[in-house]
Amino acid sequence: MQRTVYVADDVPTNIELVEAVFRNDPDIIIKKAGDGKELLESIEKNGTPDLIVLDLMMPVMDGFDVLRRLKNIREKNYFPIIVLSALTDKQSIINALNLGADDYVTKPFFVEELKARVYNMLKLKERDEFLNSSLDVMESNLLEKLQMLEYTQLEIIIRLGKASEFRDDETGRHIERIADYVNLIAEEIGMNHEQSMMMRYASPMHDVGKIGIPDGVLLKPGKLTDDEFKIIKLHTIIGGKILSGTTLPLLELAKEIALSHHERWDGTGYPLGLKGSDIPISGRIVTVTDVFDALTSDRIYKAAWPIEKALDYIKEQRERQFDPEIVDAFFNRVDNIIQIKKAKADVSSVKPIVQQIIDGDVSIEELVERWR
Amino acid sequence: MQRTVYVADDVPTNIELVEAVFRNDPDIIIKKAGDGKELLESIEKNGTPDLIVLDLMMPVMDGFDVLRRLKNIREKNYFPIIVLSALTDKQSIINALNLGADDYVTKPFFVEELKARVYNMLKLKERDEFLNSSLDVMESNLLEKLQMLEYTQLEIIIRLGKASEFRDDETGRHIERIADYVNLIAEEIGMNHEQSMMMRYASPMHDVGKIGIPDGVLLKPGKLTDDEFKIIKLHTIIGGKILSGTTLPLLELAKEIALSHHERWDGTGYPLGLKGSDIPISGRIVTVTDVFDALTSDRIYKAAWPIEKALDYIKEQRERQFDPEIVDAFFNRVDNIIQIKKAKADVSSVKPIVQQIIDGDVSIEELVERWR
Repeated sequence: MQRTVYVADDVPTNIELVEAVFRNDPDIIIKKAGDGKELLESIEKNGTPDLIVLDLMMPVMDGFDVLRRLKNIREKNYFPIIVLSALTDKQSIINALNLGADDYVTKPFFVEELKARVYNMLKLKERDEFLNSSLDVMESNLLEKLQMLEYTQLEIIIRLGKASEFRDDETGRHIERIADYVNLIAEEIGMNHEQSMMMRYASPMHDVGKIGIPDGVLLKPGKLTDDEFKIIKLHTIIGGKILSGTTLPLLELAKEIALSHHERWDGTGYPLGLKGSDIPISGRIVTVTDVFDALTSDRIYKAAWPIEKALDYIKEQRERQFDPEIVDAFFNRVDNIIQIKKAKADVSSVKPIVQQIIDGDVSIEELVERWR
Repeated sequence: MQRTVYVADDVPTNIELVEAVFRNDPDIIIKKAGDGKELLESIEKNGTPDLIVLDLMMPVMDGFDVLRRLKNIREKNYFPIIVLSALTDKQSIINALNLGADDYVTKPFFVEELKARVYNMLKLKERDEFLNSSLDVMESNLLEKLQMLEYTQLEIIIRLGKASEFRDDETGRHIERIADYVNLIAEEIGMNHEQSMMMRYASPMHDVGKIGIPDGVLLKPGKLTDDEFKIIKLHTIIGGKILSGTTLPLLELAKEIALSHHERWDGTGYPLGLKGSDIPISGRIVTVTDVFDALTSDRIYKAAWPIEKALDYIKEQRERQFDPEIVDAFFNRVDNIIQIKKAKADVSSVKPIVQQIIDGDVSIEELVERWR
């Protein structure tokens, strides 16, 4: 490895002497400076060296001043400094060492001694560099793993989402819109960035329990009987079951939402009939956005409401079905919400793929080919 | 921070002189040694010091020998050594430095100079320690994140597994057994530990596509019509769809298995009718274990076969339905497989929970209470 060694001395023959010591080492590149100012300027221009051999008595700026000025730089990016000086008095030696000189050699010096001290110091520097670069490698490794972790958590949502898609007619778009609305409202009520993102990622799983509802109930075009409605309500606790038994914060939150997004502020919701602030805030947010989006979307059993009518309903249900604070936050951001609704509109009311096969809309062979 | 500094010298007054230098610093603990052997023995007994002030001329073992013997230890766990010697000749200085001494001070010495050199060296050591401990922290951080990553990947399996549980009568036990069998066979055919573990984790997702099959087909107690059988076959490509669009190796493998675990060695399987080694090895492994476990388990539409009869069937299908190599591997481990089958037997033929509610086996209220 090539090493840049500065020699700072106002006497050219002194520099030549040091140069002579390393003439046979192709890895040592000697740079020269006639005084402290010249040295600092050259370092500023060419970057930090691997080592400095520093005279103390120099014109313009002396060695003590150089040591003072390099202190901060060397704390961050260490390189050794060997003082090579004709000053042999106690005070000079102590001053230089106290200012951070790593070594103090007096002139006249043994060529071989200087050589050995320089190589020892470069070895120390190498160790420092090795540790530092190991730290860098580890840090980027850690960052990569953290990104992978976030990505892997999202994979859970995506897989569960894709699994649900096969069960009812809600396409991914309803889920996308809910995530956007929820993120907006979370921000609006003062959640920090991380909390809002968690809400965004957890909310798409609120209806995952529908995977467990029988087709006869889930896909029924007409009005449900009382018993069928009881079964539909189960999707909250089935969702809670599917998302239970975890220590991942994202899934904890998703479970809370699945369980609580049909509770009502006035206590008449399900499955537990919780009331007011006993309902988790996450569920109170999702319920408003879920109702808004469901009302304004086509469903097997009903046509979409106009947006204005849905907004009236939400206002009317303030403090009944919905937490008043969340309703207020919803209306503070209602322009953005309507924008999302329009930008991410359903392409068409899509039937579950298996229903399409049963109905003959698509052949099995075509499907196999398409997904091959 | 307390620092242990060894002073090795055969002349007690020399040691006392160094002791006097640090008398006022409560953080410096001086330990003494009268020669090199005593020094090394004390280090071996009490652990490595933070710094050594080393005389060169000592009886029993001299300082040069100490430097030689400490070389390996210091490479792993650095601590500085300052030589403090009456030897002022060129060769001694160079020898000591070449043997790794970090500093060389000649006697008689300035008290303040020695002090400054010791403190400088301890600062270098501190930097080294800081970098090393940062590395340790990062490393344990990285390990933790890696474990989290593995754990989070498993979460995907668990969630999808729980979601499937609500759809048909297969309890988690079938899935557990398959994972065990597959792991055994993967090992038997020479996959390494990581590959076998991947197979173990990916195989439980082979039937996840059943989430997309309508209840009327999936839960039908009687024989399926041709059209219904076509729909059942779709679970392979639906599974592939649910597990698609990923860069996680585990999900890649799971997708491959979902798609290929009903292909047959003779080319008469589905969905693609692949033949022989065109079928991914992962699918060829899962199909043998899946058939064995399905045959020996009760199902809505059939009773369990005796193990012997199932084994005969697998033998008979060698080179027809199954890869002969996998069948051989299966029989090489058949004792373990039967053991797993018995150890992880189904408790009872469990109905999907929602079916239990519909049938009145459990009330909704009870379920809400149980899962609360």
